[in-house]
Amino acid sequence: MRTLMLALAAMALAASPALAADARQQERDKKSVVDFYEKALNQKDFDAAAKYLGPRYTQHNPNAADGPEGLRALLGFLEEKFPNSRSEIKRVFADGDYVILHVHAVREPGTRGTAIVDIFRLEDGKIVEHWDVVQPIPEKAANANGMF
Amino acid sequence: MRTLMLALAAMALAASPALAADARQQERDKKSVVDFYEKALNQKDFDAAAKYLGPRYTQHNPNAADGPEGLRALLGFLEEKFPNSRSEIKRVFADGDYVILHVHAVREPGTRGTAIVDIFRLEDGKIVEHWDVVQPIPEKAANANGMF
Repeated sequence: MRTLMLALAAMALAASPALAADARQQERDKKSVVDFYEKALNQKDFDAAAKYLGPRYTQHNPNAADGPEGLRALLGFLEEKFPNSRSEIKRVFADGDYVILHVHAVREPGTRGTAIVDIFRLEDGKIVEHWDVVQPIPEKAANANGMF
Repeated sequence: MRTLMLALAAMALAASPALAADARQQERDKKSVVDFYEKALNQKDFDAAAKYLGPRYTQHNPNAADGPEGLRALLGFLEEKFPNSRSEIKRVFADGDYVILHVHAVREPGTRGTAIVDIFRLEDGKIVEHWDVVQPIPEKAANANGMF
């Protein structure tokens, strides 16, 4: 009985730190991505946001140029054309090296705006890749639940 | 030393099963959602897909009616108008009670199709809520990385 208990404890000791370390890393990654998003999309502060980027930033949004310079251009465009634009994060998920945001973005206050899902991949806690999907929120819907 | 080791083992035993159970549930939820998606969007088999639904199905896609009947209507529409439509799952994520899919959907073979992120919420292993964001893939892009 005692041998069995010690064997079980040893197995738990071996398995637990890996799972717990994964969970802690994912919480850190979520916090980094949420901070990055706030600095970038709401404060439109490229330098503050760029601190969260890794040695490269592979861009899959078809409207943005690859790399950090594409992000800088987007933030410059927003600051000039839509200084009051706001992105509200509705949900944050993490799995492995990925953080996923479900976002309501409004460029002109008072308009319906867009529903967005952003997917970020991180390496060593830094953002290195980004995908997104963007859909304008329609005026009418076939259900009463809203897009969020 | 032995007391310390036993205390650490006890702590690990207490923490590990919860994390391991979460991880196992998330793997089961991923498998359920992937199977549901294949049955629904590719096989267009409402009855086979509906087995994965819980006691309700809260729909946030603005083009679909609430509940299982909205899903049935979508699959009937696809079967009639786009029988060769295909949805290819590119990435699967899970966090807590949520499963997230990154999908390339093509209604007419040979067309560029749409990029989609679907978010499903599960209760007791059954799908009870759905959000999505859908974007047509543009002909030209500002980078060479593709939307996936």
